[in-house]
Order: sequence, then structure tokens, then C-alpha cells
Amino acid sequence: MNFEPIIRGVLAGDGRHIGRAISAVERGESSEILRALFERTGRARVIGITGPPGAGKSTLVQRLAQSYRRRQKRVGIVAVDPSSPFSGGAILGDRIRMSEIYTDPGVFIRSMATRGALGGLARATADAVDVLDAAGYEVILIETVGVGQDEVEVVQAAETVAVVLVPGLGDDIQAIKAGILEIGDVFVVNKADREGADRTAAELAMMLDLSPHSPWRPPIVRTVATRGKGIEEVVAALEAHAVHLASGGEGARRREKRIRARLLALLAERFRRTVETRPSEREDWKEAVRRVRDREEDPYSVASRLFDRLVRETVER
Amino acid sequence: MNFEPIIRGVLAGDGRHIGRAISAVERGESSEILRALFERTGRARVIGITGPPGAGKSTLVQRLAQSYRRRQKRVGIVAVDPSSPFSGGAILGDRIRMSEIYTDPGVFIRSMATRGALGGLARATADAVDVLDAAGYEVILIETVGVGQDEVEVVQAAETVAVVLVPGLGDDIQAIKAGILEIGDVFVVNKADREGADRTAAELAMMLDLSPHSPWRPPIVRTVATRGKGIEEVVAALEAHAVHLASGGEGARRREKRIRARLLALLAERFRRTVETRPSEREDWKEAVRRVRDREEDPYSVASRLFDRLVRETVER
Repeated sequence: MNFEPIIRGVLAGDGRHIGRAISAVERGESSEILRALFERTGRARVIGITGPPGAGKSTLVQRLAQSYRRRQKRVGIVAVDPSSPFSGGAILGDRIRMSEIYTDPGVFIRSMATRGALGGLARATADAVDVLDAAGYEVILIETVGVGQDEVEVVQAAETVAVVLVPGLGDDIQAIKAGILEIGDVFVVNKADREGADRTAAELAMMLDLSPHSPWRPPIVRTVATRGKGIEEVVAALEAHAVHLASGGEGARRREKRIRARLLALLAERFRRTVETRPSEREDWKEAVRRVRDREEDPYSVASRLFDRLVRETVER
Repeated sequence: MNFEPIIRGVLAGDGRHIGRAISAVERGESSEILRALFERTGRARVIGITGPPGAGKSTLVQRLAQSYRRRQKRVGIVAVDPSSPFSGGAILGDRIRMSEIYTDPGVFIRSMATRGALGGLARATADAVDVLDAAGYEVILIETVGVGQDEVEVVQAAETVAVVLVPGLGDDIQAIKAGILEIGDVFVVNKADREGADRTAAELAMMLDLSPHSPWRPPIVRTVATRGKGIEEVVAALEAHAVHLASGGEGARRREKRIRARLLALLAERFRRTVETRPSEREDWKEAVRRVRDREEDPYSVASRLFDRLVRETVER
């Protein structure tokens, strides 16, 4: 397949070609495209928005997009959240409410499939961000649902992570809070006109007090995203974090960590694909599965032998 | 380290040694133990319980455990759900409520850390199930939160998967429902005394009608787990599914799929560990990260070269 037109289209900011490039990314056929685009990346400001289902992340993302648009920034949105209206996961009403940004040519919205090869989602999201970055989107918002290790990896492709919570989601949410506490650079208590907002904010502040001290103390911002309240304060907090990252060594450390994670994900995916696609493997795999099934051999011994043989064959090929 | 006492302890059903074996599993030091235990596995009935936070999964798991106990079955519980009281993620009250099963010597409860090496969680869960299986637990319940690809992989280590939903979790839940629809063999509408239970059950039935037909139509069971209502119906549905699996070719097909997924996870983890731990890699990694950071080379090209070199070195070692 000739990717030249797609690459040229992306660099020219053409929406149709950007969409095709991201589709290639999702299919894992993107390395040629990404190699070509790479030197044009690294300019966008990448922000992750995460939190449990029902926290109002998508509405907040829409409001943030509108705020950055007023600052003349082009905005890319990557929705990895299966419950997001951007991902097709919401009722028609949500989509109509969001029509303002859907029809804005300065906003590009793309949802990512949340199923696929192991480890592939974080890889695909990072690649989609690169495509939008190369296409000239200056602010890229990644929306993901903040439960599970996978989602944590996805959102860590961002420089700054905002964690969105709401009052009264029940005690079960406490545990999730604890889990995502460590990844939040900015905390948003959305639906802050609801009862319990003070308590949620106070609990959060207490948990942040208990966590290890670092030069950056994550601010807690209250919003009512449906009514546009508190949005500018969120943007201010996000941009303050960007200044913090740039001022000390933290920004550089995080960047290196992101690159390392990305290389590891690429290696793991390449390995997995090597295992899954080599035709000569197919008969051996059948036999390996049969041996474990019939309890002739344990999975550890089988995997160990397969690994050694696989590595050897890759070299001798 | 000498694993002999642990292996003997597990086979004797000794709780302390079972705990140690699972800790070794979590640290990834378990292959020797699992090789030794493997021939004693494959006897347990493994059931996955998944659903969004707040659905009452843990209470349901407790009730199911009690029901199987009344049938004289020994029950193992593996909690991969960060919001589960079994995982330490809940308030004291939850733990007190569950004290009945905590103090029952016929029940073994173990929580798994939800963070760690990519792909490691599904591998570790499958291994923990093997340990409990070899230790003589006849029913093993895996509790996980049903959001995210990782959790889907975890729960697919089970033969039968029950998806737990509740009325009124909001529209955002619809999308999650759609995502986990395909993995549910049994659907539970918990907190069925709440308003909206009929609607939730009706919507679920409609979605199941729309999905591709298969010989097994997943039943929808209503429960109020806190009051023990509907539990026997859930057990009946789970056991009906076991009969279905045994009667046709579906059980064998799923078993092979599970073995295949497990071998792939083992291979991927071994590969990742090879990458991360080899001392000679460290300088090369630093250099690789630096090249990407300074935009001298794109991550795809760097990963490709690292992969080839890595595979070669593994052989020449």
C-alpha cells in the first residue's frame, strides 16, 4: 500500500487523510506513516482526562476544547473511553449537545477501539496523538475511563493528567480514587452543584495531604461542566502544571519515561505479532495447546520451549 | 530458593503455603511451583464475576461462596477488583459484613495487585487459580471490575462469566454494557429492589436479542445480594451453563482458547522480562531513549533495531 498521499494529507491538515492515518494506526499498519511524520511531532500540548464512568468527562472535554478554541488553538480529541459520546457510547442527546464542536473545523475528534491486541491500546493512542500532532493540532485531549491498568497506561501518554470525580458516586469509588490519586496532576470535582461536593473535595485534599510530598501540589478545581462553570479555572490549573513541568527537571524525566514505555510497548507488540502471524508456527501452536489441554506438559515448560525456538528461528530466517 | 515446602504445603491445602505460593505468582517467581502443581489442576469450577464499580459484585461473590459452601464445596476467591472489600478497597463495614466467609476455613480469599507488568495481571490471575485448584478448592470465583481490556482478559480465565449490573447507574453505563455484553454467560441485575430494575432487565434482554444467535442464550437473573435474594437462581444459571459447556463442543473450544491466551501471555511476559532485566541493555536503552527524545530517530525504527538485536543476543548468549 502506498502511504505517500496519506502522509502528505496529514501534514497538510486534511481531515480525511488524518482519519485514514489513525485507522492505519488502529490496524497496526502505521509504522511507515509514523516514521514519516515523526519529525513533525513533539509540538502539541497533550492532556489526559480520566475518571470513572458518569463523572461527566466528555462534557468537560467539550468545554475545554471550546476554551482552547477561544485561544485560537486547534484541538484534537482522542476518546479511549467506551462510555464517551465521542466514542459512540452515549445517547443521541449527548451528541446533539456536542454538535458545536463536532461541526468546528478546528476540532478533530477521534475515538479509539478499546479492544485489540494486548498492550496495543496504549501504543495506538500514542500513535494517534502523533498523527494529530503532526497535522498541526496544538492541544490534544485524551479522554479515558479511569479504571484498570490499561487505561492508566493510556493516559500516561499525556504530559498532564486531569482526574475527574463527582460527589456521591458511592463508597466503591473511594478505592478507585486511591488508585488514580497517584496519576492526577489536576483534580476536578465535576457536578459541584450536587450535594456532597464539599465532602468529596475535602476528602481528596486529605488524601493528597497524606501522599508523598512533591514540588507540585495537585490543585482541586470544582466545575459544573454542563453549565460551563469552572472551566477557565481548569485550563489555568492545566497550564500552571505545564509551567511547572518546563521549569524543573520533572518535564524531562516524564518525557523519558514516556519514551521508554512507548519503546517497550512497541517491542512487546512486535514480539506478539511475530508469534501470532508466522505461518510455520500454526502447527506447532496447535500441538502446544493440545499438550497443555491433555495435561501432557505444563504451560510454563511449553512457553519456555516455544520462546527459545521462536527467538532462534527469527535469527535464522 | 527452595520451593519444595511450599509445593507440598499447597498440595496439603495449607493456607499459609497457599498464600506464599500466590505471592510468588505475583512476583513472577512461580514457574517452578506451577510446573510442580500443574498435574493436580484442571479439577476446579472457575467462575468470573465482573461488572462496573458499585454493582455490588463483592456482596454477590460472598453470597455465592456461602451457597457453594452449603453444597459442601471448598471455595477460593481471587479478587482483581480494586474496589472490592476483598482487595482492601472498601470501608470497614464491608469487611465486617463479610466476616462470615473470612473466618470459614473452607474459603480462601486472595486479592491480586492490579498494577504491574503489562499483561502480567491475566497471567498472575490464571496462575493463582491454578494454585487454588491444586490446593483442592472446588469452586473458584474471580472478581474483577468490568471496565477495560485488561479486566476482560482476566475474567476470560474463567469457564463461565457472570456480568453484574444495577439499575440507574446512568446512561454512561449503557456503553459498558455493550462492551461486556459479549463476554457474559449469565447476567445479574443486582439491587433489583431499586427503581428501574425492570427497565434495566428489559434493555438487557433487548440487547441480547440483537446480538448474534448462539445455542446458549444468557439468562438474566435479578438479585438483592445484600438480602440474599436470587442467589440460588444465579447458582442454577451458572451450573446450567456448565452443563451447556460440557454437552457440546463449546467447552472444549473455550478451553483451547484459554490455553492459547495463556501461552501467549507467558511468552509476552518472558520477552518483556528479557528486555527489562538484561544488564547489557541498560546503556543501549538510555541511548535509545535519548535518540527519540532528541528526535534523531523515530520510536518505530529504534524499536525495530532493538528487537532484532535483542533476539540475536538471546540466541548467542
